[in-house]
Amino acid sequence: MAALSKRAGAALVAAVLGCWAIASAAQSGDPLPSWDDGAAKSAILDFVEGVTAEGGADYVAPADRIATFDNDGTLWVEHPLYAQAMFALDRVKVLAPEHPEWKSEDPFKAVLAGDRDAMAGFAEGDWAKIIAATHAGMTTEEFSRIVEDWLAKAKQPRFERSPTALIYQPMLEVLDYLRANGFRTYIVTGGGQEFVRAFSEQVYGIPVEQVVGSSIATKYAYQDGKPVLMREPKIFFIDDKTGKPLGIHLFIGKRPYVAFGNSSGDREMLEWTGAGDGARLKMLVLHDDAEREYAYGPADGLPDTKVGTFPQALMDEAKQKGWVVISMKNDWKTIFPDEAN
Amino acid sequence: MAALSKRAGAALVAAVLGCWAIASAAQSGDPLPSWDDGAAKSAILDFVEGVTAEGGADYVAPADRIATFDNDGTLWVEHPLYAQAMFALDRVKVLAPEHPEWKSEDPFKAVLAGDRDAMAGFAEGDWAKIIAATHAGMTTEEFSRIVEDWLAKAKQPRFERSPTALIYQPMLEVLDYLRANGFRTYIVTGGGQEFVRAFSEQVYGIPVEQVVGSSIATKYAYQDGKPVLMREPKIFFIDDKTGKPLGIHLFIGKRPYVAFGNSSGDREMLEWTGAGDGARLKMLVLHDDAEREYAYGPADGLPDTKVGTFPQALMDEAKQKGWVVISMKNDWKTIFPDEAN
Repeated sequence: MAALSKRAGAALVAAVLGCWAIASAAQSGDPLPSWDDGAAKSAILDFVEGVTAEGGADYVAPADRIATFDNDGTLWVEHPLYAQAMFALDRVKVLAPEHPEWKSEDPFKAVLAGDRDAMAGFAEGDWAKIIAATHAGMTTEEFSRIVEDWLAKAKQPRFERSPTALIYQPMLEVLDYLRANGFRTYIVTGGGQEFVRAFSEQVYGIPVEQVVGSSIATKYAYQDGKPVLMREPKIFFIDDKTGKPLGIHLFIGKRPYVAFGNSSGDREMLEWTGAGDGARLKMLVLHDDAEREYAYGPADGLPDTKVGTFPQALMDEAKQKGWVVISMKNDWKTIFPDEAN
Repeated sequence: MAALSKRAGAALVAAVLGCWAIASAAQSGDPLPSWDDGAAKSAILDFVEGVTAEGGADYVAPADRIATFDNDGTLWVEHPLYAQAMFALDRVKVLAPEHPEWKSEDPFKAVLAGDRDAMAGFAEGDWAKIIAATHAGMTTEEFSRIVEDWLAKAKQPRFERSPTALIYQPMLEVLDYLRANGFRTYIVTGGGQEFVRAFSEQVYGIPVEQVVGSSIATKYAYQDGKPVLMREPKIFFIDDKTGKPLGIHLFIGKRPYVAFGNSSGDREMLEWTGAGDGARLKMLVLHDDAEREYAYGPADGLPDTKVGTFPQALMDEAKQKGWVVISMKNDWKTIFPDEAN
């Protein structure tokens, strides 16, 4: 038998330790090993116990076990900028040679010049132009491939890793735990439905038909005699704020029993979830961990931000209505999957 | 022990005969007992055998086993008028006392006067006015209750039964057979998504989240401090013709392996399904049985119709592309569930 190389040996040790960690988590019976013991973890465990106890007052039939999750800032990192915005800006650079006019045309010239101040001040109309130029004009299949290629190469600036590696281990455990208890887990994102579908199954185990998001219009057309769906530069649906309950009803048609978010874009999703009968789990991730991830609010005196704002009014409403706020700093032992073992 | 009443005795006999029929179908191993042996039945059986044979050339992973079904004329009776159109006309009559102006206003006055010729000539704009007046202005929950109440009382004019009793037994068997083989069955209807959701689970075993259909816009609002979704008099999405593949991609995000339709509104759904790789089952129900149901085309010299048109061009395309046409007269032993035992 050949001696193990140093690298293979290290991999073996990591695998053994990984298995040991998984085995001990299974043995301890803790489905949420990356969560610190505390109110947030207890809220999840107690809720699931209640809705799965047959004959109990809070029992929920399996067909109605719907759980909805925001994506940006709830399942993966959204700072310093939404991954999809980074994607759009990168696409402007890739497409620039075909558009010489962009050198002197707002908002493209700011992107091409790398003018961070100008980009930080982009209005909704600027982003609409960028989305139209980068997200439309191709088939749905081509767009998915473009997103997949980008995700394979993209590096988030602080952690220098793909956005798909910067997902929250504690939330992966919640997804698994809910699914093990008969829940169907949905993403309900303000981001692009088609963008998120490009990685939802592989990264979160959430199939494409369980991704609700914003979308542009599509058109049935033919290429070489075969039908294709062409992406059009025209907004079809905005799945944010009041759009989240609308999207949930349109795509799922059932009121969720579980909703996780992290910003004012998720307020109405939690409100809609909480307005149903019986026990409902409503939770918000607070980014208060500048050391391990980011810190922004401006709730509780955290720095203000334009990306994933968690205002004080949302914090006050959460306290009043019993929405559970998750402190990234205090409730999560680990942040990313590669720290988990 | 008390003697059985005549009625209870008859029910017992019926139950025993029913069990015997089910048991003998199970014993014979025929999952489609209401189908006559022939090309249509064989096409279904051969397809399912192929896509479920692990290691076979046509094998399809369970996650991708998506089957889409038109509703009107494919799963239930659509003549002499779509059930939802009957619903809308009935609602005009119910709401008329609140709208005295309708007595002299098109298209409402024709409905209130029972003017069949005028109604038969209604243009799309007339129906849009009727839909706006009868399908909007209430919450999504109120609308569902109105539909359920109507279905409980409505009588289709020829068969004098609720539309939910006038479903096709052979198609129920196809739904069950596909589900037993790992398929998820979706309705993809030109009719209203919310209308069909009111009965899809109970009648077809299809949960509301697997109903894709046309929809009007909704708005997030508050009633007595609780959030509601208000139905607005504004078209949001038309899930018909080219809208069917768009709706399939928007709501499901996967290309179906199975598509059943019955009219030109389903053409693009079958084309989109057939444009995928590997084995795909594309089928069209032809209503050629005036005695047991209805006969209309105008394909193959059948009478022309405005409701569920199956033109000769669709028949020619079906033959050319290998879409299997189901003859209601020759391929179905029984039509409705109560004839099945």
